[in-house]
Amino acid sequence: MTRCQRRRTSVSGAFMLPRLLCLLCFAVISLAEENTEMVNVATERKAEESHRQDSANLLIFIILLTLTILTIWLFKHRRFRFLHETGLAMIYGLFVGIILRFGVHLPQDLNDITLTCAMNSSPTTILVNVSGRFYEYSLKGEVRDSKGHDVPNAEMLRKVTFDPEVFFNILLPPIIFHAGYSLKRRHFFRNLGSILSYAFVGTVTSCFVTGLVMYGCVVFLKVIGQLGGDFFFTDCLFFGAIVSATDPVTVLAIFNELKVDVDLYALLFGESVLNDAVAIVLSSSIVAYQPEGDNRHTFDGSALLKSLGVFLGVFSGSFAMGAATGVMTALVTKFTKLRDFPLLETALFFLMSWSTFLLAEACGFTGVVAVLFCGITQAHYTYNNLSAESKSRSKQLFELLDFLAENFIFSYMGLTLFSFQHHVFNPLFIIGAFLAIFLGRAANIYPLSFLLNLGRKNKIASNFQHVMMFSGLRGAMTFALSIRDTATYARQMMFSTTLLIVFFTVWVCGGGTTPMLSLMHIRVGVDTDQDNSVSSTHKKHCLITKHESAWPFRLWYTFDHNYLKPFLTHSGPPLTSTLPACCGPIARCLTSSQAYENAGQLHDEDTELILNDDSSLMYSDMTVSTDAHGMPTPSTSQAGLCSLARTSDDPLDRELVFGGTRLVLPTDDPSDPLTSFPPPPPSPPLSDPLRHRV
Amino acid sequence: MTRCQRRRTSVSGAFMLPRLLCLLCFAVISLAEENTEMVNVATERKAEESHRQDSANLLIFIILLTLTILTIWLFKHRRFRFLHETGLAMIYGLFVGIILRFGVHLPQDLNDITLTCAMNSSPTTILVNVSGRFYEYSLKGEVRDSKGHDVPNAEMLRKVTFDPEVFFNILLPPIIFHAGYSLKRRHFFRNLGSILSYAFVGTVTSCFVTGLVMYGCVVFLKVIGQLGGDFFFTDCLFFGAIVSATDPVTVLAIFNELKVDVDLYALLFGESVLNDAVAIVLSSSIVAYQPEGDNRHTFDGSALLKSLGVFLGVFSGSFAMGAATGVMTALVTKFTKLRDFPLLETALFFLMSWSTFLLAEACGFTGVVAVLFCGITQAHYTYNNLSAESKSRSKQLFELLDFLAENFIFSYMGLTLFSFQHHVFNPLFIIGAFLAIFLGRAANIYPLSFLLNLGRKNKIASNFQHVMMFSGLRGAMTFALSIRDTATYARQMMFSTTLLIVFFTVWVCGGGTTPMLSLMHIRVGVDTDQDNSVSSTHKKHCLITKHESAWPFRLWYTFDHNYLKPFLTHSGPPLTSTLPACCGPIARCLTSSQAYENAGQLHDEDTELILNDDSSLMYSDMTVSTDAHGMPTPSTSQAGLCSLARTSDDPLDRELVFGGTRLVLPTDDPSDPLTSFPPPPPSPPLSDPLRHRV
Repeated sequence: MTRCQRRRTSVSGAFMLPRLLCLLCFAVISLAEENTEMVNVATERKAEESHRQDSANLLIFIILLTLTILTIWLFKHRRFRFLHETGLAMIYGLFVGIILRFGVHLPQDLNDITLTCAMNSSPTTILVNVSGRFYEYSLKGEVRDSKGHDVPNAEMLRKVTFDPEVFFNILLPPIIFHAGYSLKRRHFFRNLGSILSYAFVGTVTSCFVTGLVMYGCVVFLKVIGQLGGDFFFTDCLFFGAIVSATDPVTVLAIFNELKVDVDLYALLFGESVLNDAVAIVLSSSIVAYQPEGDNRHTFDGSALLKSLGVFLGVFSGSFAMGAATGVMTALVTKFTKLRDFPLLETALFFLMSWSTFLLAEACGFTGVVAVLFCGITQAHYTYNNLSAESKSRSKQLFELLDFLAENFIFSYMGLTLFSFQHHVFNPLFIIGAFLAIFLGRAANIYPLSFLLNLGRKNKIASNFQHVMMFSGLRGAMTFALSIRDTATYARQMMFSTTLLIVFFTVWVCGGGTTPMLSLMHIRVGVDTDQDNSVSSTHKKHCLITKHESAWPFRLWYTFDHNYLKPFLTHSGPPLTSTLPACCGPIARCLTSSQAYENAGQLHDEDTELILNDDSSLMYSDMTVSTDAHGMPTPSTSQAGLCSLARTSDDPLDRELVFGGTRLVLPTDDPSDPLTSFPPPPPSPPLSDPLRHRV
Repeated sequence: MTRCQRRRTSVSGAFMLPRLLCLLCFAVISLAEENTEMVNVATERKAEESHRQDSANLLIFIILLTLTILTIWLFKHRRFRFLHETGLAMIYGLFVGIILRFGVHLPQDLNDITLTCAMNSSPTTILVNVSGRFYEYSLKGEVRDSKGHDVPNAEMLRKVTFDPEVFFNILLPPIIFHAGYSLKRRHFFRNLGSILSYAFVGTVTSCFVTGLVMYGCVVFLKVIGQLGGDFFFTDCLFFGAIVSATDPVTVLAIFNELKVDVDLYALLFGESVLNDAVAIVLSSSIVAYQPEGDNRHTFDGSALLKSLGVFLGVFSGSFAMGAATGVMTALVTKFTKLRDFPLLETALFFLMSWSTFLLAEACGFTGVVAVLFCGITQAHYTYNNLSAESKSRSKQLFELLDFLAENFIFSYMGLTLFSFQHHVFNPLFIIGAFLAIFLGRAANIYPLSFLLNLGRKNKIASNFQHVMMFSGLRGAMTFALSIRDTATYARQMMFSTTLLIVFFTVWVCGGGTTPMLSLMHIRVGVDTDQDNSVSSTHKKHCLITKHESAWPFRLWYTFDHNYLKPFLTHSGPPLTSTLPACCGPIARCLTSSQAYENAGQLHDEDTELILNDDSSLMYSDMTVSTDAHGMPTPSTSQAGLCSLARTSDDPLDRELVFGGTRLVLPTDDPSDPLTSFPPPPPSPPLSDPLRHRV
């Protein structure tokens, strides 16, 4: 009797857990044959052995992570700061890699049979007819003919090697989502312009500078005969793209712990979160520039334009997709009373965020980028609709996923240094690469900072610039992008070099952050929550904010605050007061009763989250609607507003506050110590939208 | 230039996310050939198309789950109780299955090429030499030669079909772990004997009864010529094993909501959690009994003994493994100060629990069973060591995973009814199966209840028995076990029948639970927290507990309370007071300072969790150690104790409380309203273990 192979064989690093691949094995009920029965039993044994081996391999990783966690605890407990947890994870990975490579000796499994057949293409599935019975085989990919038999334990090493797509499809999304979701830094929006400049202009500059330097290096290598294969200009650019993404993890954990200056923090955090997205799209645009079946790899104007088109298309598409899912989740959580069931709410939140990724991939956009913007949108809108329990649940869940994925990637990086079998270490190339990333980073930071400083009141000081220069660690994204394709000589050399760059930057730059900060005399231990009470800083902030934020941002903020937020969340002013009178019925429909309640307290949770620096509230009050009496009603509760009004010498400022601006709703918060106006009129009744428009 | 296939082709239902399978594709750098370049670009396009398709397929499931969640919310919101969420998930799955089967028409992908080669076995990997370049293919399994071309959209349907191992390796572990982890029901331990009887003796009885009835049915079918293939006695037993596992999900959610009698709840919950483990091990033992290369499939004494050996070996091995990991986690969380960092703690907890599964699988035991006992151990010991935040984090995390996995399984079940292409619906077999599970369940419940009632003071009433009979839903485990192997005619028929059984029991029995309860006059709305204050019930409970729990349980409980719990957790009496004097230094080493603090309050959280019915505390105080003065010191803080002492007419009871029992540590909880003894002596100083032994 033929029995199905219950445990699928997967010689090639198939980890037991993720057997999601494959289909049901529709094995046939052939007539019972005595010999095939024996063969089947043997095959099943082999399959079970393989399954056991896979479990053991995954266990290695789990133990690695467990060890890392325990050591992290020890480090935190003893307050060691010279090495971050990601650096630790890499060290453990390195050790395991060494052990697997040199310590374990397993008998070589010689199961591979080479068939020679006259096909002119490689189909995705083949059926092999073995003495009358059919077995299905699926394509794993092309292999090197030598098959790595020069390396001992090739089989073992292959087993602990993951599919590179794992990084993109499983490990990166939670990391990136978490970065977006935890982006509600108060100073982020204030520095938005600079952050966008660094992330977009800076990353592209860095990519091209690095690419050009590398091209020079490659040409030099070719001349002295040190290059063992092709290395085109597009490869150089690709290398530039993948090493230009800075890692938001390591330095920022240290910054957060040390409570470094908030502006510096915001700049670095914002840049590194956004440039991951830029790097992904940039590298795939460069790949799109490359092929078309020819081998020219030379400069071509139309192809460049095409690449630019791809870049813009993919980026905006992914952005739109992420934002759309975020908005949808916000609407669902707003209009259902799901918040009564935190489990359902969290599950829905999780699933909707995940579906962003899938949707983007299904549509041919970049899932990781979509997930980033989805995270930002969720934090900005959906988060306000969640119940308190779901808020903490979702935060904790994504924090955990982020932590696990991150440490897994870094320990895998360590392991890869020894388990990857096709390293190409070219000393000159490596030196060139280090020089290139240094120059690329410098070309990003210094000129841009200079230009930005022309427009900024709150200049980016030179010591800030040096720290930004120094803190450009390369991490998970660089690794994931470089391991994605290691087929050609160029790609292998890039991968090996990238690994070294990551190791170096994480260990040296990451470990050197604390000394660097003290060398640069950068204030640490800044408690941002107390910052507001210091009136001198506060006044300064007020002015900065006004001047720094350009009109597109103000316009957007007004629109967001008056229409989007009330529409998508329970917070913000009721739509009934912001929309024109003709939209009354719709507005009443869309405004939740909670919004009316929240309206009483302008200092709502939401404002707190996104812009909870009082000075920024200036904009939140700069709405175009009129108050109950069609007259400008000065708010008495906003410290930022008041202090601005009293301290600013600029007539425009006063006009902005008292003249040009009409507050949506007067507030009645008597607790503010700065109150110097008579008490405001009471809030309008909840069910009388007409009062807002006399 | 040859470029690596960045996106692996995976025609066979490979979902994009779980690309963990496979290895790095070590594609060779062959010299650039113009035609292969073209071929490669085409292959890459195809691969990307396939990747996109995979994402879309997974998206279907996510949307399905999202819809289910929203409908669950609606049902909960409107308080519909006739259909549980799992039933809903199945209905949605059914709809999608119908749409995929009949609504979507995709062009057939004819990529498969059949190679005929002279091999006498099927290797796990083959290399195919396509015009000088090697491609690696891995074995997916044997296929039916007809290849299901009779069904339209075979390709599409195959794509939405998961590897059956997914259920075992990804979806079941969180469900089972959560069942174990949330097992801290106060009444569970009180009914432990009965629960074990139902789970072990009952499930085995049910398996054999069902198997025998099915064998009769199969013989009848064979006689009337309605059987289309082989169906051996072992197949019948296997069927008995897989349909004997009752589902802990559906009914219990309803019971929990309705607050049904706690004993009934405990019996059903305990049974259904443990019989999953029994069913897994039982079915694999039956499979082990089966082959050995012969086709006898008849009764064989030695093979039966061997199966029994396998059963016991695998069960105890898995049990030991699960318990061992749990104990290890407890030790780690106890002796490190990891609780200062909840994120690390939760991550460690999660990883250690997962590693149980891998460890068991790597050692050849059953991961799911190990995970169950790991969950129980974690809840009993580790949970006490966790910080408050980790407690809620870990609970919420596993709750979410459980919820998602469960709903996924049930919606997949619905989908499978239409997407599975080899259904064998045999009406007579199905009728026979329904009869068999009815008889099997009856043979489990009624005789066992009768026997148990002989020994129980708190008899299991006949209406309880009827409800237990009625509430034996079949769910995720039955499905997972039956889909694991659908190779033969017998297995396909089983799978189809099992699906119908699950549908029927979930919809009819699950939906009928509420009417059934009222029909059987079973009290609902029992608030277990208030139960203790009702003194009449309370007194009854006290007596029951004492009489019901046999001496092995008391012995175990004493050992656990005095040695294991203090050793593994921060709770319980300090080891310094329970271990003999000679072990003093070790005891001091192993006892945490918190234990001394906790010792002051006997009502520790831990006791609350496991046995937080006051009556059970009787045993927790029945320790063999002496107090500070070597004299029996009556505790004054235990309501259960006091009420027992004052209400019991049984001299043995009094002796147990005041004579035979010596309390470990006197307590000083003056808040107890029942205090009727003089105040106890103060607690001994923390650092003087010698005082305990004068």
